[in-house]
Amino acid sequence: MTQSTETETSELVLAERHGAVLLLTLNRPERLNAWNIPLQERYFALLDAAEADPGVRVVVVTGAGRGFCAGADMEDLSQLGTVDPDTFGQLPGRPRERPLSFRKPLIAAINGPVAGLGLVQALYCDLRFTTPQAKFTTAFARRGLIAEYGIAWLLPRLVGPSRALDLLMSARVVLGEEALALGLVDRVRPAESLLADALAYAADLAENCSPRSMALIKQQVFQALDSDLPTAVALSTKLMHESFRHPDSAEGVHSYLERRPPRFEPLESA
Amino acid sequence: MTQSTETETSELVLAERHGAVLLLTLNRPERLNAWNIPLQERYFALLDAAEADPGVRVVVVTGAGRGFCAGADMEDLSQLGTVDPDTFGQLPGRPRERPLSFRKPLIAAINGPVAGLGLVQALYCDLRFTTPQAKFTTAFARRGLIAEYGIAWLLPRLVGPSRALDLLMSARVVLGEEALALGLVDRVRPAESLLADALAYAADLAENCSPRSMALIKQQVFQALDSDLPTAVALSTKLMHESFRHPDSAEGVHSYLERRPPRFEPLESA
Amino acid sequence: MTQSTETETSELVLAERHGAVLLLTLNRPERLNAWNIPLQERYFALLDAAEADPGVRVVVVTGAGRGFCAGADMEDLSQLGTVDPDTFGQLPGRPRERPLSFRKPLIAAINGPVAGLGLVQALYCDLRFTTPQAKFTTAFARRGLIAEYGIAWLLPRLVGPSRALDLLMSARVVLGEEALALGLVDRVRPAESLLADALAYAADLAENCSPRSMALIKQQVFQALDSDLPTAVALSTKLMHESFRHPDSAEGVHSYLERRPPRFEPLESA
Repeated sequence: MTQSTETETSELVLAERHGAVLLLTLNRPERLNAWNIPLQERYFALLDAAEADPGVRVVVVTGAGRGFCAGADMEDLSQLGTVDPDTFGQLPGRPRERPLSFRKPLIAAINGPVAGLGLVQALYCDLRFTTPQAKFTTAFARRGLIAEYGIAWLLPRLVGPSRALDLLMSARVVLGEEALALGLVDRVRPAESLLADALAYAADLAENCSPRSMALIKQQVFQALDSDLPTAVALSTKLMHESFRHPDSAEGVHSYLERRPPRFEPLESA
Repeated sequence: MTQSTETETSELVLAERHGAVLLLTLNRPERLNAWNIPLQERYFALLDAAEADPGVRVVVVTGAGRGFCAGADMEDLSQLGTVDPDTFGQLPGRPRERPLSFRKPLIAAINGPVAGLGLVQALYCDLRFTTPQAKFTTAFARRGLIAEYGIAWLLPRLVGPSRALDLLMSARVVLGEEALALGLVDRVRPAESLLADALAYAADLAENCSPRSMALIKQQVFQALDSDLPTAVALSTKLMHESFRHPDSAEGVHSYLERRPPRFEPLESA
Repeated sequence: MTQSTETETSELVLAERHGAVLLLTLNRPERLNAWNIPLQERYFALLDAAEADPGVRVVVVTGAGRGFCAGADMEDLSQLGTVDPDTFGQLPGRPRERPLSFRKPLIAAINGPVAGLGLVQALYCDLRFTTPQAKFTTAFARRGLIAEYGIAWLLPRLVGPSRALDLLMSARVVLGEEALALGLVDRVRPAESLLADALAYAADLAENCSPRSMALIKQQVFQALDSDLPTAVALSTKLMHESFRHPDSAEGVHSYLERRPPRFEPLESA
């Protein structure tokens, strides 16, 4: 069987629509969906397309097979001695923080082991669903590596600096329930209903929440993490005035008073 | 029965002294204490008076009837099409962040539903007591609105950015126990003892903690959220030296060594 | 019995090696290990030596007797009226934030009561193990004092501003399990296994995690608390490139692929 390169690349991340929810599946199951550049480029291209598609309101990302993402592909890492480290560090492709600026809700359904860069990418999602059996590890300190990408900034804000140091310095494995208690994930669900539950949450957002509101709120939250209170209040005042002039706010109030589902507009281009 | 306008305004927020604790009650029970400008002005005026009153050491705020605060009054919001949005956004009155600079402990006893601006105001209190039955929602995204006032800055600091995005993007309803697990509230108490428990906590602060210490600590915590560690340490060193010269520190040490309740001075004017 | 001053000073903090783990014991049990300048200077000198010693990879600190640290020695504080407060505030010795810049993991095994400056020092450790019976209090507000040293900055980042205000304004006592729920500590263990469990955690770090990785990760986390995301990402990119060139990353990958324990290099001097 022959396949074009394009087809092979496409299959690195599968895309499937469930109404206004787009389900993306990291799809290198024979490698626990280990991250490599082609997979990343496919994932980010799908996010770009989802952002531009008015029919997509929420995205869920999961892993094929028994894991979510084992981190950077170790076959690549084992060649560290043979490749120029700078070349490796500055691999082609866009900044790996791409999901943080994605303008629609991005929900991870962590179906199994997640490690290293895989965990970083899971933390770049807005919310995380997982199972009691899923294994989480930062991995870096046990490989002689550092806190890669944005994790030294994001993890202490998610779980506090002490829990972040515990997870980063020890690189110990935590399971789903402890991940929930630590604040590393937001929901623990039985493996058999994980995906359905994440999709149901996403469908609720898609049906009942204004895409414009969600995009602006996400932007506000991330800007506020790096700003002071007066700056955040000034931004919210400006956005509040603009929201009053947008049809979504009238629809929001009217649908509420009329006790019917809202019909919010698709997200406009940025 | 005729009432003067002044009397009507006064009744929008009730004030009742319990020793050195002032209990304020949002009092539009027929509207679930929905926020409007007259209620806000009355609430903030009472905070001003409480701040200046040496007899008041701690304030508790609760809601009359079955709710805490349903948010901005929907009757006002439903007129959005007819009023100038800028006028609405820049409603008369002071910045809504007033409680964050209130120099005495401010404790919310959330007796029932709290939504939107009502939740923002509850989060502007230092601590939150609630009941298992109380319903919490940010509400904004389901009304086509954004993360209003300081909530995009404050909520991620209270519960982390992931839980903040969950609550803000979905605007889902959470009950008291989940609110506690998320860090949205600090205590869950049976409905029948909620107010008594909040008042007892407040009375302990009023009787055993230096009003000056509490005012400075509150100022330190909020300044530190927007500053770096060296700045916070420099401020604490300055304030520590000043505290050693203030009678409250001698009284604090002596009452401790003598195993008797302290007699701290009332808070001085700023 | 006569003792040289040096010997007396040495005994204020005991030091004992367990393989690559150094156990330090605050040792004024008759005063609940209350903090004073000689104890501090001894503790910080031992941290200096541990940092420079290639044989020490992780440090655990605990208290002798039934407590961890009762805070600043009250006998000193009771002399506040007789000593120059400025002299007291600017006591000889180094900044009390020394442990935050310590380049190896520093784990507190909180065996009993911890208060005031004792709690500040416990929070300056990277992780905290404790027992169900241990009592925690900030103490300051009940002594007419303020949020001393870095606690107004660190505590809201560990537990959120609302829980920080609760603990700082009320200075109430919390026990081990509540301390865990609040995020004030990371592990609760039975009193009889507390020290063994903390040492076992430390031994795992010493045996399986790169000292260089842990030092850089700790630096990254604290820098990131005071920086924005782009700054943190830029630093991580630089450090990642450097890590690829360091033997620890090759050893990390090879030991993983060969399923054997890693042999990481001792931490180099800064």
